[in-house]
Amino acid sequence: MLRLLPLLATAAAVWPAPKSISLSGASVKVQPGGAAFFKLNGTSPLLEAAFERYAGLVFPHRAAADGAALASLAVRVVDVAEGAPQLGDDESYALSIGATAATLEAATVWGALRGLETFSQLVSFDFDAGSYEAAAGAVEDAPRFPHRGLMIDTGRHFQPLASIFEVVDALPYAKINVLHWHLVDAQSFPFESKSMPELWRGAFSPRERYTQADVADVVERARLRGVRVIPEFDMPGHADSWCVGRPDLCPSETCASPLDVSKAATFDAISGLLDELAGGLFPDGFVHLGGDEVNTACWESTPSVAAWLKARNLTADGGYAHFVKTVADLAIAKKRRPVQWSEVWDHFKTDLPRDVVIHVWKSVTNVADVVAAGYDVIRNVGYDATSWYLDNLNVNSSAVYGNEPCDGIPADLCAAHVLGGHGEMWGETVDASDIDGTVWPRLGAIAEKLWSPEAATIPTPADMLPRLAEFRCRLNARGVRAAPVYNAEARSAPPGPGSCLKQRR
Amino acid sequence: MLRLLPLLATAAAVWPAPKSISLSGASVKVQPGGAAFFKLNGTSPLLEAAFERYAGLVFPHRAAADGAALASLAVRVVDVAEGAPQLGDDESYALSIGATAATLEAATVWGALRGLETFSQLVSFDFDAGSYEAAAGAVEDAPRFPHRGLMIDTGRHFQPLASIFEVVDALPYAKINVLHWHLVDAQSFPFESKSMPELWRGAFSPRERYTQADVADVVERARLRGVRVIPEFDMPGHADSWCVGRPDLCPSETCASPLDVSKAATFDAISGLLDELAGGLFPDGFVHLGGDEVNTACWESTPSVAAWLKARNLTADGGYAHFVKTVADLAIAKKRRPVQWSEVWDHFKTDLPRDVVIHVWKSVTNVADVVAAGYDVIRNVGYDATSWYLDNLNVNSSAVYGNEPCDGIPADLCAAHVLGGHGEMWGETVDASDIDGTVWPRLGAIAEKLWSPEAATIPTPADMLPRLAEFRCRLNARGVRAAPVYNAEARSAPPGPGSCLKQRR
Repeated sequence: MLRLLPLLATAAAVWPAPKSISLSGASVKVQPGGAAFFKLNGTSPLLEAAFERYAGLVFPHRAAADGAALASLAVRVVDVAEGAPQLGDDESYALSIGATAATLEAATVWGALRGLETFSQLVSFDFDAGSYEAAAGAVEDAPRFPHRGLMIDTGRHFQPLASIFEVVDALPYAKINVLHWHLVDAQSFPFESKSMPELWRGAFSPRERYTQADVADVVERARLRGVRVIPEFDMPGHADSWCVGRPDLCPSETCASPLDVSKAATFDAISGLLDELAGGLFPDGFVHLGGDEVNTACWESTPSVAAWLKARNLTADGGYAHFVKTVADLAIAKKRRPVQWSEVWDHFKTDLPRDVVIHVWKSVTNVADVVAAGYDVIRNVGYDATSWYLDNLNVNSSAVYGNEPCDGIPADLCAAHVLGGHGEMWGETVDASDIDGTVWPRLGAIAEKLWSPEAATIPTPADMLPRLAEFRCRLNARGVRAAPVYNAEARSAPPGPGSCLKQRR
Repeated sequence: MLRLLPLLATAAAVWPAPKSISLSGASVKVQPGGAAFFKLNGTSPLLEAAFERYAGLVFPHRAAADGAALASLAVRVVDVAEGAPQLGDDESYALSIGATAATLEAATVWGALRGLETFSQLVSFDFDAGSYEAAAGAVEDAPRFPHRGLMIDTGRHFQPLASIFEVVDALPYAKINVLHWHLVDAQSFPFESKSMPELWRGAFSPRERYTQADVADVVERARLRGVRVIPEFDMPGHADSWCVGRPDLCPSETCASPLDVSKAATFDAISGLLDELAGGLFPDGFVHLGGDEVNTACWESTPSVAAWLKARNLTADGGYAHFVKTVADLAIAKKRRPVQWSEVWDHFKTDLPRDVVIHVWKSVTNVADVVAAGYDVIRNVGYDATSWYLDNLNVNSSAVYGNEPCDGIPADLCAAHVLGGHGEMWGETVDASDIDGTVWPRLGAIAEKLWSPEAATIPTPADMLPRLAEFRCRLNARGVRAAPVYNAEARSAPPGPGSCLKQRR
């Protein structure tokens, strides 16, 4: 019989690799159950919903239960408060699987969620015996970086709610805890603003839109999985779609972008939008304000804007500085930490409020300088065409894994100021048909670089790709349409017949 | 505002086109509800499960209900008996949406399911008003062909249960009513046989397998959606994977295929397998026995088989005839109609039992002769590299739609003997990552050719592609990862930013 991988889960099968895992090699027969398989020392609606999900994930087949030694997982959580997940939540947990009892301990519900995922990866179905087996042993685990994210772009293509739900559902399988939602871009504005309902007219079509109730459903679905949702409204560039509904916020009909820096109405509009975001819709402490790829030519060629700049003795770049600092201050006043892209640092450095988180994506941005100046950083690790931009289809899983978040940064500054990183799924060629294969399995490689101890991932372990292939098969079994691991080009079709574990290159 | 398609559903938005549809142009505001929105004149577990599903599909957004005129759909079914769907079930229905009441009438639960789908396509969400609108009017509908299928191949790649569930879930959206499950092939044998558990050793890996409980779950999920499941065990060719567990059924270790025609054990094994299939696991009246691409060289080069042929004065082709007729008779004895591929007709014509259904896929098969001889036919419409084989990635939606099921057949014989057709998703380059995009939207084009009146599809209507794009957006919104409609190559990525309705070529 082909036994490409042992039926009993091994330490190597757990993805991302835990801080510490020690398996005895023994297996324990498990009695499958529903949500009641998980016994919590208290009451937690969030964990009860998680138990329902994990009962389905751990026990996908009908099975015999006779002779099973393990009939439950005891879950002990010190503080079952839930609320909304935030940066720095304690995600640590300890898991122990013994011959007659299994226990998961965590300080918070967020840690318990991470431990449930690990437990699900240590139970396997033995098709020959028709029963479930758990790998006996112990896990102590906690993330290397607190901020581990995926960006999705719903401005270049509308992603139906069903797509976003499926993306959110899969994130905790890799212990990803942030969804950075690049909601709008130059091409379309699908978001429903209550303060500016006209903006919605910038959607691709009347139905390629998100109601605020839809958005709230995404945020809640993510919260239940321990995933923060950070909205991005990119400004002042990448904002042409704002002009469809609010042409008054743009320099002119012929020169739409960047947003008009000269008008108070522009900042009033943004302030109103930020009030909506911070008023309960997005409970996360971060808000992303973009700031990238700003071409100020429109400002210089539009007489009213040029006059405004001149009256204030500002260059176009000075106008750009005024814009990004003003909106950052607006966010801070509304108790949100602004996140802004590299260029904002490149242009204005320590003129920026210290609360700004710099989202580094360009090789010209000296990340060591950023952290030395005391700014927190989210890294799109690697640079430009070799980075964690998931639209770089030629950057395969090995290359993704080769990017190291602390590269070029002293260890103490990395620990102090690199919050983590993102895979960024820019949406030019990504719609509902190919989003899963664009994101996975490469987001898995990113997840391990951000969760697992540095020593476990540098140098790249020899078994990384087979382990990632195993994780990809698991994703597939859970309904996530992750692409083959070994293809040179991401999201391409399997080249010929074969096992998902040993897909040919 | 971009209004690529009106918010109110039009007759053109219903896919596949009904036999008769007449909309008044008026819209009726609908009060969203759960399963209780649908009021049945009786009791039907199958329809109650369908009401749950369609409540989610019809009302995907939270909405205001004030001022709504329509608060329910009355569903009247003459005979709520369900059992397992079979060839020729009455799938007709009549749907009426008026200013204050809406009614769906059908003779059977299967017709009611088809009508629910049409109803779901006539209700739309008005994002600006925050409410649901139904298009007022009347539909009378029934299929052109009774047999409208998709073949999936789980021999070349294992498709996880989650994948198959998602495939099954989507079939009724296009009123497809048959899943032809090509379970095993030369490369792997993922099916659990209770009579021959050794066969399972031919799976790609211990976990790339289906338990009988898994299979039963697929069959039940399909039944609830009015979808018949026809299992295929291809024989005597394409059967190398049988030899892993049962080498005694194969000519020799070095010459594995076709299965050994000379041994009684071969037919005993097949008889046992058929007993399992017909013993409740697959309630459908059809069983597919393959019979294609049989290369008899192994029989002639294996001394024991060659001697057996000689003793009976049989050529190798005579051995092939003996094989396919014997297994067809076995199926008939177990009250199943055998389906066999083209080659079986090409070789043996009217020697075949009259109950055999010929599954035509090759241009050399003269389909007019087949039906003239009184045999029933399932067509893979079009021929060879231009056919409905969904692995023909260069056959785009327009080309798929251009294939006509009655081509080359007198109308009366087509009506009498062409049961319908299939899209065939051969799995060499299809795994969980790309199955949806391989199947959809082209299966939608096939579905309309098989459901809608001939006059509605010949010649291809000018609005076919925009209508299919609309249907594809609907699939995407329902979580089906259907590929863009306009690409020259099927399942390729969208070429650039844009609306799903107007994807660039």
